[in-house]
Amino acid sequence: MEKTAIFHRSTDNYVYLLDDQTLQIRIKTKHNDVNAVSLILGDPYIWSNGQWQYSKMPMNLVGNDGLYDYWETEAFVATNRLRYGFKLSSSTEEVIYTEKGFYDSIPVDSDYYFCFPYLHENEQFQAPKWVKDTVWYQIFPERFGNGDPTINPENTKNWGSEPPAVNNFFGGDFAGVTAHLDHLTDIGVNGIYFTPVFKAHSNHKYDTIDYMELDPQFGDAAALKELITQCHKRGIKVMLDAVFNHSGYYFPPFQDVLKNGENSPYKDWFHIHNFPVVGGDKPNYEAFGFVESMPKLNTANPEVKKYLLDVGAYWIEEFDIDGWRLDVANEVDQPFWREFRKIVKKAKPDVYILGEIWHDSMPWLRGDQFDAVMNYPFKTNVLNLLANNSINSQQFVENMSKVYYSYPKTVFDYTFNLVGSHDTPRILTECGDNINKTKQVFTILLTFMGTPCIYYGDEIGLTGGQDPGCRKCMDWNEENHELELKNHIRILNTLRKEEKLLANEGFVTFLHPTEPNGIFGYKKYNSNKTILVLLNPNSSNQKFSLEKSENYNILYSSNIVIEDNQVNMEPDGFGIIEYNV
Amino acid sequence: MEKTAIFHRSTDNYVYLLDDQTLQIRIKTKHNDVNAVSLILGDPYIWSNGQWQYSKMPMNLVGNDGLYDYWETEAFVATNRLRYGFKLSSSTEEVIYTEKGFYDSIPVDSDYYFCFPYLHENEQFQAPKWVKDTVWYQIFPERFGNGDPTINPENTKNWGSEPPAVNNFFGGDFAGVTAHLDHLTDIGVNGIYFTPVFKAHSNHKYDTIDYMELDPQFGDAAALKELITQCHKRGIKVMLDAVFNHSGYYFPPFQDVLKNGENSPYKDWFHIHNFPVVGGDKPNYEAFGFVESMPKLNTANPEVKKYLLDVGAYWIEEFDIDGWRLDVANEVDQPFWREFRKIVKKAKPDVYILGEIWHDSMPWLRGDQFDAVMNYPFKTNVLNLLANNSINSQQFVENMSKVYYSYPKTVFDYTFNLVGSHDTPRILTECGDNINKTKQVFTILLTFMGTPCIYYGDEIGLTGGQDPGCRKCMDWNEENHELELKNHIRILNTLRKEEKLLANEGFVTFLHPTEPNGIFGYKKYNSNKTILVLLNPNSSNQKFSLEKSENYNILYSSNIVIEDNQVNMEPDGFGIIEYNV
Repeated sequence: MEKTAIFHRSTDNYVYLLDDQTLQIRIKTKHNDVNAVSLILGDPYIWSNGQWQYSKMPMNLVGNDGLYDYWETEAFVATNRLRYGFKLSSSTEEVIYTEKGFYDSIPVDSDYYFCFPYLHENEQFQAPKWVKDTVWYQIFPERFGNGDPTINPENTKNWGSEPPAVNNFFGGDFAGVTAHLDHLTDIGVNGIYFTPVFKAHSNHKYDTIDYMELDPQFGDAAALKELITQCHKRGIKVMLDAVFNHSGYYFPPFQDVLKNGENSPYKDWFHIHNFPVVGGDKPNYEAFGFVESMPKLNTANPEVKKYLLDVGAYWIEEFDIDGWRLDVANEVDQPFWREFRKIVKKAKPDVYILGEIWHDSMPWLRGDQFDAVMNYPFKTNVLNLLANNSINSQQFVENMSKVYYSYPKTVFDYTFNLVGSHDTPRILTECGDNINKTKQVFTILLTFMGTPCIYYGDEIGLTGGQDPGCRKCMDWNEENHELELKNHIRILNTLRKEEKLLANEGFVTFLHPTEPNGIFGYKKYNSNKTILVLLNPNSSNQKFSLEKSENYNILYSSNIVIEDNQVNMEPDGFGIIEYNV
Repeated sequence: MEKTAIFHRSTDNYVYLLDDQTLQIRIKTKHNDVNAVSLILGDPYIWSNGQWQYSKMPMNLVGNDGLYDYWETEAFVATNRLRYGFKLSSSTEEVIYTEKGFYDSIPVDSDYYFCFPYLHENEQFQAPKWVKDTVWYQIFPERFGNGDPTINPENTKNWGSEPPAVNNFFGGDFAGVTAHLDHLTDIGVNGIYFTPVFKAHSNHKYDTIDYMELDPQFGDAAALKELITQCHKRGIKVMLDAVFNHSGYYFPPFQDVLKNGENSPYKDWFHIHNFPVVGGDKPNYEAFGFVESMPKLNTANPEVKKYLLDVGAYWIEEFDIDGWRLDVANEVDQPFWREFRKIVKKAKPDVYILGEIWHDSMPWLRGDQFDAVMNYPFKTNVLNLLANNSINSQQFVENMSKVYYSYPKTVFDYTFNLVGSHDTPRILTECGDNINKTKQVFTILLTFMGTPCIYYGDEIGLTGGQDPGCRKCMDWNEENHELELKNHIRILNTLRKEEKLLANEGFVTFLHPTEPNGIFGYKKYNSNKTILVLLNPNSSNQKFSLEKSENYNILYSSNIVIEDNQVNMEPDGFGIIEYNV
């Protein structure tokens, strides 16, 4: 047995509350090295005749990422306190693994073991429940709909009359979104994530001038309130984008520092290395990257903190928004986010906090900061498999397994999945205009564990390369819509609404392909039912063996056939199959 | 290369701020498997010709625990942002290890790499600086000195006239401590950790009746204030014990629940499963263990929280105490401790927060809860080696290496080391009354990384078994003192004061024995100087090879000899050696 591969620590993704009496416990071992794992468990205070009283329960091999096997079990903890260890068996040996190390036999003192000292309800990871039932729709407001031409900015172009550029404007606004809410309901989305709407210089508005004011090109407070009211009437949630890492160049405090240097009352609102302030390629102040027009805010400064926390509360209290998406969230200090969570959850207990983090995000997802992060590893792997063909389906499953098991299930249930945004080429373009591949992408997006987000226009087949190309005006002429794609998304969203297993109820395991680029997928299940989502990424027909059942029910597929417990699937096909084992 | 043994995650003990511009980064590999490790590092935003710009620096093999090798380096991060990965070489292969997995060559996109997004000063682990220079002394107040017989409780026995028992009283009090502060200064301690002093029923006072009142047997507010004033005059810090996990049986709110059941306004102050409340072996309410007289407090209840947080602030604001030791800290909810930290640090920014946790304590030591925990693994391993002989010195070094590398250095620098307490047999008794072994125990205690704590009376050779045996009255008759032991402790504390390397400045590595139970120790060093602490646990003379030097200086030893860069040490010997390499 390869002992050095065995890993567990009493924190994060290895042990956590599933509910107020149940812990989910995980351990990883070298792939194909260990035959069986048991959990040894007991209350640390229950002893008899000088011996700690423990019980044993088997753990399940639930997945592998090619390098490690992952074992998991759910332990019901009647007395709220737990000490635990692991018994691992290979074909040649048996070892006991505890916090103190490896032993040949079971230590009789509970002090040796891993500890989950007490199950406190308030230590359970708690994201707003409504998020599980939400399908998000990302709107870049300058390009979704022009509902009020009277507020068009100077030089507004006719809607869609020219390609999107870094500096052109088409006059999209709040009224334009309000006018088109039926489209959202029609395709089955019930949450809008707006890129920034506050007063700013550019068309993307990531260069904030005033966090307390709406950009006049989008409309006034009444227009946003009307939009939110109409959304809430239709059961649509609204999330705004908070760009707190840096301000825009024209943010008055930064202008004051540029003008007054060391004498500015705002000099500590930023991280200025020395005076006078000099921009250019390597500004002498901290910035987003080295971009002179995006000076980094000093979120540890009490005045800045107060200003931004007030912003966080204001838009909830005054406009009843439902969520905050936090731009460049990883580069802002964590103590700030802890305070932010307190303030905004006080303003609205079920408000949703979503961080933009591209890398391992465990430190922000321990319950005291964010409810979710944007799942970029998901995007990368889906695109690498289905658009770039740079990985095969075996690698896809291994990569996603590695990511999945690096978070608690309770956290991953809320991960924010996306396949494109205002920052990346359009998904149809990424897929080489192949509708079947794009349909596969959406099949995964809308059935995977987590919360899906559709970038506006992807559902009708908008195309475009790297930004600004991916920021075309929404096309409201139905004749131009890719109806097959739109219909596919509509069907998947309906299924997701009807079948809670597709929307993060229950458990999940990945299905590895039997050939390197064969059919793969995932199984979602509870004690009553199993649903499989299967995809064939291959350019030839492929088969996949199912567990035996009398009553397969194909919920949605691309003409697959099931015969003798075998799925036969065409190239680029998909299938969503329900059955009882 | 055993890839499954290689482990790093961008959190906790693997990457952390040493100062506001330096990260310490660690990785572990299978013991004796990897020959060299380099860190690949760069700012994620610095690219040139489509390639991420990185540099490389070697990592140092700093320790091993028998199973894993630990590699470490300090990275100066000029631009505050870091992406990083590892290049590992064995005799047969070379691999690149990143957050996304293993690669044969260096990925050119910074997105693949581990990320430390931004070095924020307020994310640095910060315990009060004064703790590094503190040697603690634990006082069980009922047994240290009777300074005011007028407040003796009923049936007080003559000082030391009978063995300590569960229910007897000897009248120790605050005045008795004040009267003996010279003794503390004499042996070189400068911090007192008092077991509970609040109004309670028992002689140990862990069964609190009123957290806002002192136990009258110890004296009134004036007596404690006088004691603290006298301590502060001498540079002695004072820490009190907060028993917030559970109250005593006679805590009025619990009495009210016993009396009024469901109608009690305090019914939610505890965790009562059903009414009427029934005690006995398995009380129908949560308790410390299953002890009916120690009902668990519901620290998530807003009223309880307010009451206990007020307690936390009150004794600081009114009595100027310097620290809180938190009893059964692991079983109280972590959100409570986060608020506790805010409240007490607001009352006194450099107040010290010490948790009682027996197991892996990483979740409580992320900067938002405790400054330190009590280092029970230290106690266990020291005793197993030097008192019980259940492990040899090789196992000692491996076990302590495992513990050491499971925390950031910045955290372990503040760990609270102890070798005995009011809960365990006296250290001299544990060592079979062997003075030389006991001297070795104190040699480790007072030179190890962390903050040492001496249990009152251990320095004069008090004996006694498991509690209540270990709670004898302090013996103030110098003729009864083990002068050799007392002098040993005095010398070590003087050395520790003079030589900051012995008090947690600089770096440390463990020295493994060359024979399973040979001479072992640790090396403490900075760029100027090296100090070795060496011990011979063996019953025969042992040798240990030193690095070559011209100027060894033996700071303190038990008659060791250095010849040809070799230490020769008698059985149960020790040596503290300073030299320049």
